[in-house]
Amino acid sequence: MTVITAMHVLDVRAPTSRTLAGSDAVHSDPDYSVAYVVLATDDPTLRGHGFTFTLGRGTEVVGAAIRALEHLVVGRDLDSITAQFGQWHRELTNESQLRWLGPDKGVIHLAVAAIVNSVWDLWAKREGKPVWQLVADMSSQQIVDLVDWRYLSDALTKQEAVALLDDLMPTRDARRAQLERDGYPAYITSAGWLGYSDEKVRRLVGESLDSGFTRFKAKVGISVDDDLRRVSFMRELLGEDRPLMVDANQVWDVDQAIEWMSHFQDLGLQWIEEPTSPDDVLGHATIRRAVAPIGVATGEHAMNKVLFKQLFQADAIDFAQVDACRLGGLNEVIAVLLMAAKFGVPVCPHAGGLGLCEYVQHISAIDFIVVSGQLDGRSTEFADHLHEHFVDPVRVVGGNYQLPSLPGYSAEMHPDSLAQLAFPHGTTWVETHEC
Amino acid sequence: MTVITAMHVLDVRAPTSRTLAGSDAVHSDPDYSVAYVVLATDDPTLRGHGFTFTLGRGTEVVGAAIRALEHLVVGRDLDSITAQFGQWHRELTNESQLRWLGPDKGVIHLAVAAIVNSVWDLWAKREGKPVWQLVADMSSQQIVDLVDWRYLSDALTKQEAVALLDDLMPTRDARRAQLERDGYPAYITSAGWLGYSDEKVRRLVGESLDSGFTRFKAKVGISVDDDLRRVSFMRELLGEDRPLMVDANQVWDVDQAIEWMSHFQDLGLQWIEEPTSPDDVLGHATIRRAVAPIGVATGEHAMNKVLFKQLFQADAIDFAQVDACRLGGLNEVIAVLLMAAKFGVPVCPHAGGLGLCEYVQHISAIDFIVVSGQLDGRSTEFADHLHEHFVDPVRVVGGNYQLPSLPGYSAEMHPDSLAQLAFPHGTTWVETHEC
Repeated sequence: MTVITAMHVLDVRAPTSRTLAGSDAVHSDPDYSVAYVVLATDDPTLRGHGFTFTLGRGTEVVGAAIRALEHLVVGRDLDSITAQFGQWHRELTNESQLRWLGPDKGVIHLAVAAIVNSVWDLWAKREGKPVWQLVADMSSQQIVDLVDWRYLSDALTKQEAVALLDDLMPTRDARRAQLERDGYPAYITSAGWLGYSDEKVRRLVGESLDSGFTRFKAKVGISVDDDLRRVSFMRELLGEDRPLMVDANQVWDVDQAIEWMSHFQDLGLQWIEEPTSPDDVLGHATIRRAVAPIGVATGEHAMNKVLFKQLFQADAIDFAQVDACRLGGLNEVIAVLLMAAKFGVPVCPHAGGLGLCEYVQHISAIDFIVVSGQLDGRSTEFADHLHEHFVDPVRVVGGNYQLPSLPGYSAEMHPDSLAQLAFPHGTTWVETHEC
Repeated sequence: MTVITAMHVLDVRAPTSRTLAGSDAVHSDPDYSVAYVVLATDDPTLRGHGFTFTLGRGTEVVGAAIRALEHLVVGRDLDSITAQFGQWHRELTNESQLRWLGPDKGVIHLAVAAIVNSVWDLWAKREGKPVWQLVADMSSQQIVDLVDWRYLSDALTKQEAVALLDDLMPTRDARRAQLERDGYPAYITSAGWLGYSDEKVRRLVGESLDSGFTRFKAKVGISVDDDLRRVSFMRELLGEDRPLMVDANQVWDVDQAIEWMSHFQDLGLQWIEEPTSPDDVLGHATIRRAVAPIGVATGEHAMNKVLFKQLFQADAIDFAQVDACRLGGLNEVIAVLLMAAKFGVPVCPHAGGLGLCEYVQHISAIDFIVVSGQLDGRSTEFADHLHEHFVDPVRVVGGNYQLPSLPGYSAEMHPDSLAQLAFPHGTTWVETHEC
């Protein structure tokens, strides 16, 4: 028995807007941040850490939402949660008064993610395993019971999910060994932020190639001429065969996306990411039909499993970019992985923000070892910054994520980093105010 | 020139859970609440009042989100906002760091609604008109400029919207006179809350019939047998011809909704409301095809204009139940009214919570006078409670909303009510704690 005795919430912000790291067509000045959760237990040596990623302002709003859910967390026995984890997930997302704030979307769902992911970290630490392994060691039925199945049965039933997982069970160990040997393929975003000069992009692409990266993404969407120039020279630097993707961060209407992408048909792009509103299932389907063979990708703003369900049902996307925090924690991510496997859509998780790479390495490992069993068309986003703040940071070697080996969800931050980045009283922010 | 000099945010909660008023299949114990906004100006006699409706816990989270938007509001000249209101709406919803918390959904969008609606109240008070009249006195182009058109052009262009409004311009005055004479048809929900006994429902239906109501709605979704008993005796009390609707509040999966409603085909129901997840466009379309001639209605949880766009494009609903706060304020409501008119879907606004009836009477008047020009199939929800807290409460006579005549958006609450319901220090709540 492990009782959760307290839930601490911290507002942690990195001043990334000072360098335009992370800048794109709609996020001009992000300060990569997290609403950070620490679960204390009756075992003084055991704590759970989790967070939800944010862009600076508003982190305090997510913090307020996390605190509003405290009565469903503090005082609970960890085993009573994990024994019926899918049901507890529904308790969190269907709190009878808080549900109105979503349901299952936006701030309240980001808050659920921070809590749920911190419970995963706690559970995995207690079991002495990294989260990916905790799941990889489960039976098919145990995995299916992680999910709240409401609203999914017209796309995927529990029984279908068990069958799908059972099929891959005999070969799990081989895939685990493969990841332990080779790692999981990454693509790099941090060479192509929109706020960077051409010179800086050229230099970063060169350095990334030297480090072994073979897959790259560029931000687009402000000026078609600038986009063409930038993407064209990136294609030249990469040669014909290396995957290159572009990301418009939701800036276009449906028809505008189709027109814009018509200029890019000769550049061998793997996907156009977030061409329009993340909520527009039918719009993505229309765009996908029009821009093929360029693929369509979305998901970092896909608010919940019901939206992903529809993206799959409508043949709207070629790549599903699940986010570790946008969805209500790992349980809902697993629901989406299962649907993606049934519909044959590769999952390429969104990452790059503060701590997101640390989370998604587990998600991709679970997808490959347990759920889809495939690497074809798959790669996981990587941005090369802010990892120094984490106790168990990602290790990317030769362009591949190395399997994490420490217990937990790789979400724990260094005490020094928390002291530095705490908002508004951390040293980073106090110094700013003094200037 | 009218400068907004301060924005005050209040947490106001009515203890409705004590009587089970408002109870339904997923909201078992709502405390009808508002995150209440007061805009002060450089004119000490002029203030704007607005709010977003909530269910109790979590109102403080919406309050935090409203405060996070303060820098886009305080210090602004009212005319600089209203002259380009659609553009300002986009500024609010696309704040470069806060956008991540949505975009355009959940807590941050509820916060936008409270602010935007308080600006409408302020504007209308300064012009000395009720909000419906402020809009009814605008040109077609002025109305179209209220809207942020991003993401809508594949369903409705600005030009189409202007043409649609121009067509109805010559007959606006006649419809206004009609509403001033007859009022706007209401349907009543407060007779059929799920937590009420059969006896109480019978008594309330009888009283409502005596008051002139002819349209009724019942909550369903917990037990098919209980639902059938309740809906059958309501049908008996109402006779064959009076409209009767049922509302499941999102409790079913798609297939389950279809099966459940198969038991209700002989009861002459006008619609099944919220049969499944409010996010499930394709699911609603599937249900609609299966349950006809019972109509499908949704919207009180439809998070934004992009979701409504898809509900229209997919022929997923027979009735669009816009909410005055779920959408990001009146500007976005007008965008949905315009799309609904093009697609020929009647708008029947959601109401019933604290203050929602006060808002939606304006919306229905705008829809009839300016946008759709029709009453066929339309009625506006009404629940008979909590109106005493408003300075300009709704007046419903013979089952019809009477046109409001005082300047503003009817959103201002009595100071005594605020003192009573303020959470957690108002007299209502302090007394509770003492018990």
